[in-house]
Amino acid sequence: MIDICKKVSSVRGALALRGRIEEIVDQVWEEGLKNLCWLGIGGTWASCLQAVCHMKERSRLETFAINAAEYCTTGDRRIGAGTCLIFSSVSGTTKEIVEAVEKAKAAGVRTLGFIDNAEAELAALVDASITYPGNEQLKFFMVADRFMQHEGVMPEYDAMYAQFDQYLPEALVAVEQEADAFARSFAEAHMRDALHYFVGAGTLYGATYSYGMCYWEEMHWLRTKSIHAAEFFHGMLEIVEEDTPVTVFIGEDAQRPLGERVARFLPKVCRNYTVIDTKDYALPGIDAQYRPAVCHLVMHAVTNRIDAYLVELTGHDMSLRRYYRKIEY
Amino acid sequence: MIDICKKVSSVRGALALRGRIEEIVDQVWEEGLKNLCWLGIGGTWASCLQAVCHMKERSRLETFAINAAEYCTTGDRRIGAGTCLIFSSVSGTTKEIVEAVEKAKAAGVRTLGFIDNAEAELAALVDASITYPGNEQLKFFMVADRFMQHEGVMPEYDAMYAQFDQYLPEALVAVEQEADAFARSFAEAHMRDALHYFVGAGTLYGATYSYGMCYWEEMHWLRTKSIHAAEFFHGMLEIVEEDTPVTVFIGEDAQRPLGERVARFLPKVCRNYTVIDTKDYALPGIDAQYRPAVCHLVMHAVTNRIDAYLVELTGHDMSLRRYYRKIEY
Repeated sequence: MIDICKKVSSVRGALALRGRIEEIVDQVWEEGLKNLCWLGIGGTWASCLQAVCHMKERSRLETFAINAAEYCTTGDRRIGAGTCLIFSSVSGTTKEIVEAVEKAKAAGVRTLGFIDNAEAELAALVDASITYPGNEQLKFFMVADRFMQHEGVMPEYDAMYAQFDQYLPEALVAVEQEADAFARSFAEAHMRDALHYFVGAGTLYGATYSYGMCYWEEMHWLRTKSIHAAEFFHGMLEIVEEDTPVTVFIGEDAQRPLGERVARFLPKVCRNYTVIDTKDYALPGIDAQYRPAVCHLVMHAVTNRIDAYLVELTGHDMSLRRYYRKIEY
Repeated sequence: MIDICKKVSSVRGALALRGRIEEIVDQVWEEGLKNLCWLGIGGTWASCLQAVCHMKERSRLETFAINAAEYCTTGDRRIGAGTCLIFSSVSGTTKEIVEAVEKAKAAGVRTLGFIDNAEAELAALVDASITYPGNEQLKFFMVADRFMQHEGVMPEYDAMYAQFDQYLPEALVAVEQEADAFARSFAEAHMRDALHYFVGAGTLYGATYSYGMCYWEEMHWLRTKSIHAAEFFHGMLEIVEEDTPVTVFIGEDAQRPLGERVARFLPKVCRNYTVIDTKDYALPGIDAQYRPAVCHLVMHAVTNRIDAYLVELTGHDMSLRRYYRKIEY
């Protein structure tokens, strides 16, 4: 059962953050911006990759993702005065994120944190914080899009968000409904896979990475490998055999051809592949030209349903952890 | 049998390229540099990641890696006049690389290509090309280090390379000899693994990525997953069980603690792990302070021996391909 009201109101509430996001971004823009840095680790790192990929299509700003643990060790001398650092943390207590934000602050960086737990000490550390559960990718894209509007490379900003505000919450729930039968059969077919490959490109690369590692590995305890569609043809293809389970995530941004190329190749050598193409989902009310900006949310809606059926079929509770925050390391 | 003379002379010849590399870099530096872009795909992409990670420890320059297929689709508006683009290609015919170099040229970028095949059309397309077989990472690091010397963040450049010129070729061959017995036992233990995990950080992350994908998958047809040590604790750890084969590559750069953390964790939950620590290899003649700059070459020397034993034990020819450049896709 899809809890329609809850899901619609979750996305609607996230979209309603836009006024506050605009205030924060506008102030940063006015003060002057040297570069825009997205900080994450694990699942939030994947969201950073998505935001950067989204911006690269248009922006001339210097924008990049940095992994919190790498920043804490190697550092990054591009991060300093004039940097705006954006991150998201559900708990607000992830060790690497807290340490990285402290380090960035000491380097004179302005920080915007989406911290779902308003009580976390981290919330007091940042220049601006926004507390609202879930919808991390949508939050990041709203920040990215506002910066791009200021830069003058997103003239459709107002019209696009007017449409998202009106139609996106219901449209994404409709995706879950459309995907429901597929998701059940996919979960049935692959719930016992010894190793499942996920391939994707563009803003969906982050989705393949986090879906493989943060959902299947961490939450379902199923082994995966995620690979960028650009890289698939430079190594991984050689271990694809007739029965190898491979799923290709195809989106609608500029890197769509990279996913399509993998989808064209697979039938030649494999009979156990699946293509999930966001284009197959209707998104009523959303113009074709705005779909690239939300195709990662469409994929997330599809995988939500797969997760639901994996839980139903395997009985494995997604909140169960063997080691994470359970033993010292 | 390790062909000592051949290996020593290969590294010696690569180091001898430094004069020509300096000429090229010096000219770029004099003309003015906006940013430094490393272009690759597959194995060469991994080398780009290594070069960028190496530079990040010290440099304030804007430097980044870009995947050729991503650049050809999404593009990158930071790449243009004032960009110096560096790449390596053995064949000089890799489709994505050729297309990306053409696109960069059209954007007004200066290009330096290490193209092992001097006859390739690509060699005529670049502003500067250097033809010498193998040693891709060493070539890249020589470029990176010369830029960092100009920037004033590598005062030890002359002294370090004087030592490398004198001792590095023999020191790396000595690593292969020191690693030989270990490499045989490792190959024996893991040649039948259904899935092997490689974990690494810093300049060794590129090594784990390419060793997993370009060596084990593409050349040995053995399944792997490579994961950054920073990311290991945010998902992958949950699927490590007592018998899961996991190998940690530990280097000597600033991210060493990230690899060490994984190495400390594994014995708590797994009995089938291996730690390969570059620090265990002597490198006679090389000062401790210069080891971080070459630890990736040490790891490469170790994995060379593993490859040799995998071939000997499995009889699988590393030049065999199922699909790559064999079927259309």
